[in-house]
Amino acid sequence: MERKFEETLLSFKELVHKIKYYNEALAVLFWDLRTGAPKKGVPARAKVIGMLSTEAFRLSTSAEMEEFLNYFEQKDNHEQLDSIYKAVIQECRKEFDRFKKIPEDMFTEYVILTSEAESVWEEAKNTDKFSLFSPFLEKIVDFNLRFIELWGYEGNKYNTLLDYYEPGMTVDKLDRIFEQLRERIVPLVQQIKDSGKQPDDSMFFRSYFAPNKQEEFSLMILDKMGYGFDAGRLDESEHPFTIGMTPGDIRITTHYYPNNFSSALFSSIHEGGHALYEQNISSDLDGTPLSTGTSMGIHESQSRFWENIIGRSYNFWSCYYEDLKKVFPIEFEGVSLEAFYRAINKVEPSLIRVEADEVTYNLHIMIRYEIEKALINKEIIVADLPRIWKEKMKEYLGVEPKDDKEGVLQDVHWSGGSFGYFPSYTLGNIYSAQIYHAIRKQFDNLDEMIRNGELIKIKEWLGENIHKHGKLLTPTEILKSVTGEEINSSYLIEYLENKYKEIYNIK
Amino acid sequence: MERKFEETLLSFKELVHKIKYYNEALAVLFWDLRTGAPKKGVPARAKVIGMLSTEAFRLSTSAEMEEFLNYFEQKDNHEQLDSIYKAVIQECRKEFDRFKKIPEDMFTEYVILTSEAESVWEEAKNTDKFSLFSPFLEKIVDFNLRFIELWGYEGNKYNTLLDYYEPGMTVDKLDRIFEQLRERIVPLVQQIKDSGKQPDDSMFFRSYFAPNKQEEFSLMILDKMGYGFDAGRLDESEHPFTIGMTPGDIRITTHYYPNNFSSALFSSIHEGGHALYEQNISSDLDGTPLSTGTSMGIHESQSRFWENIIGRSYNFWSCYYEDLKKVFPIEFEGVSLEAFYRAINKVEPSLIRVEADEVTYNLHIMIRYEIEKALINKEIIVADLPRIWKEKMKEYLGVEPKDDKEGVLQDVHWSGGSFGYFPSYTLGNIYSAQIYHAIRKQFDNLDEMIRNGELIKIKEWLGENIHKHGKLLTPTEILKSVTGEEINSSYLIEYLENKYKEIYNIK
Repeated sequence: MERKFEETLLSFKELVHKIKYYNEALAVLFWDLRTGAPKKGVPARAKVIGMLSTEAFRLSTSAEMEEFLNYFEQKDNHEQLDSIYKAVIQECRKEFDRFKKIPEDMFTEYVILTSEAESVWEEAKNTDKFSLFSPFLEKIVDFNLRFIELWGYEGNKYNTLLDYYEPGMTVDKLDRIFEQLRERIVPLVQQIKDSGKQPDDSMFFRSYFAPNKQEEFSLMILDKMGYGFDAGRLDESEHPFTIGMTPGDIRITTHYYPNNFSSALFSSIHEGGHALYEQNISSDLDGTPLSTGTSMGIHESQSRFWENIIGRSYNFWSCYYEDLKKVFPIEFEGVSLEAFYRAINKVEPSLIRVEADEVTYNLHIMIRYEIEKALINKEIIVADLPRIWKEKMKEYLGVEPKDDKEGVLQDVHWSGGSFGYFPSYTLGNIYSAQIYHAIRKQFDNLDEMIRNGELIKIKEWLGENIHKHGKLLTPTEILKSVTGEEINSSYLIEYLENKYKEIYNIK
Repeated sequence: MERKFEETLLSFKELVHKIKYYNEALAVLFWDLRTGAPKKGVPARAKVIGMLSTEAFRLSTSAEMEEFLNYFEQKDNHEQLDSIYKAVIQECRKEFDRFKKIPEDMFTEYVILTSEAESVWEEAKNTDKFSLFSPFLEKIVDFNLRFIELWGYEGNKYNTLLDYYEPGMTVDKLDRIFEQLRERIVPLVQQIKDSGKQPDDSMFFRSYFAPNKQEEFSLMILDKMGYGFDAGRLDESEHPFTIGMTPGDIRITTHYYPNNFSSALFSSIHEGGHALYEQNISSDLDGTPLSTGTSMGIHESQSRFWENIIGRSYNFWSCYYEDLKKVFPIEFEGVSLEAFYRAINKVEPSLIRVEADEVTYNLHIMIRYEIEKALINKEIIVADLPRIWKEKMKEYLGVEPKDDKEGVLQDVHWSGGSFGYFPSYTLGNIYSAQIYHAIRKQFDNLDEMIRNGELIKIKEWLGENIHKHGKLLTPTEILKSVTGEEINSSYLIEYLENKYKEIYNIK
């Protein structure tokens, strides 16, 4: 018996590692494709990626995997597993069920549909024709409804989709969260508008900011944050991203716009936040599916924490503004620290989510959330979306898109079937403020630490309390252990009110 | 029957492609490791490489592969294959037999031995202790002898090893070749020594040659050669190399030494020559093991042709020396084209193969060849090597290493068991001169073409006559079709005599 258990565990570990190795190879191939693979090699590379993904997928859903899961889920065997492998079994079971519950034909059809939908979406966006995209979107929604039936659900059907990206998240919780945000953020945006104190950020767009100098400054900041360049690298790509192979190799990218100072820098800090998370996962989890962030929301909390709470704070720039002026002496000549701080925190309701500031950003997400929830619950139909989009933009943000291109068609996500993903962005913001609150309690001289550039202490605290656990703890467990609370949006609201009332001189 | 043939062929093609895709993924991983993968990720990456190599190896030697080979080798079936798939079957059979004829335990033991031997060699070299390495080398030679017994051999045992890297090559042929080289090159080296006309190349080492400027010039030359940057890229690595994923993605590297002008440039041209070969293989061979160079020797002929015959020619620099002086105006101030040409062609017998010039290079290879042949035929023993090495260096090159570090221990190859590989370098030189002769007959204004920078015409000729065939033709077939002859070292000898007697003013 004992002997059999040991041997079975060893074989299971081999299978788990093998899946992980495939994914690691795939990560290198993706990184390569997006950072500089020669374009003539792309079609052949796509086939290689397809083959390796299929192999990994086969292993995750194989009869062998099922046998292992059944074996280790038996009470006697389960009790003998350590806490890590208990969690590994749970994770593998989740993946296994997710795919095995869907009939193979149906899955293939869906993969084809979503890959077609992406190019249709692109055309629909470019030509501003929602009607091109809507039949595809209808089918995608319909598929997701059928998946939910197969996967099962508790309470609201949308819960099943939410749970995939943020285990434990429900419509009940999110409704309360967005309710609070709506009540306090919509008025804050209005007060900011009415204040008449719009900062001048024209200096960010006036000069030529040489990409190599932008890079130099980004590298310096990443280093100060404690990003390990012996376990990562910064490259350029069309869209910034973080990609993790193993904690020893977590790479980030940014995109340098010579006529936009702030874009590449804040992307670098944002991706740096994601990367710190992955670089500092405990080596105990190496080679398992737990060696990654616990959820999209917690991941986003790390990137937003560094980008916004640290990276757009007055204390941070008290430390680094002089260094920045050394890199761009002419470009920032005559710009005071105060003026610079206000400029990087300019709030302006706008149409495009990815360009939104810290305050209005969550309102964009709220619109997506309300629409997704209603679609999945069949309270609205796809044809209504352009109208609903415009109404909600007007109501929450006070701006109205003139077309669908800068409205409901702006984001790619739905074409790939990613329903339930958008809320992660706001969850990330909320968590980041809760974590910030917890850190403030830990370090009573936090402001001074940041002003002195002692960011490493913060990185170490995050590493010890969040990063090292990887996916071994659930998002709720992490949050509880760090903050003593469940999700609570009031910290984000207070943070935003305090910060922006001061900046906009609102009483 | 027809139906079964079609279906079996389809399944066989799938298997062949799958092996190719694994190798393509591996190539990306190797490239990444050597060009900038973060060092903390290396141990995990090695496991991924191990896993993918094992998968590819398993497929190449699987029962499934054996069945396919048996099926398609049957006369009726074989006749129905097109010429490409006839060659694919042959190639897969070769690989299959190569590995299946060795018992698995023996192969594993050998893999472990050679990987240990590499670090032992490194230590032996660093501490100048041949005695550390010799027990390993003895075992490696012994393994190779046992492999030869298993693989079988015709004539000389060493033929089997030669044939692996250069199909069709034999000791008989090589003996004649090296005999001729010895007769004419050894005296030429002596005449050069005696001429007293050593060029001054101190300007290559006197200045700081900024790596980015070196890169700029290398990129320009590669572009003129017709290297496709939409199907490749130039990066920096410790040792220069070319790595091929598919013809759409053939990457090269070089290494910039700020205090050595010529190293990175000629490495770039050399690797560019390899890369042109792989970039221009016919797409008919895509996804098959034939989509690569036909042999090490023919591959090396392409790199040497561009590096030496074109890249170190007077005509070439008549075209590009002014461009070079624009990039390094101060560094080459007062250096005439003639002086520059003589400097890049300085001949000096030296101890280290990889630093050897065009004339003395083949003498280094001759020593390796003679030693390998004698070892495999048990005419000498490993313990004799340091002494034999020194004697031969003295005899052929007139220089004698003071220790084994700069003698018999200088190269890594033997620690990995690569016997039969060294001759490829000289074969490449010989082929390159034969090909040059053929091109001269084709273009009666070749000198003028080179002086005008019309390198693309040469690249296209090579593409049409050599590159496009990939591994579909054997080295001998390629050579025959291009030159009308078999291997013939007199072209190389004449080329070297003509070129260097002029440079050294030898009557």
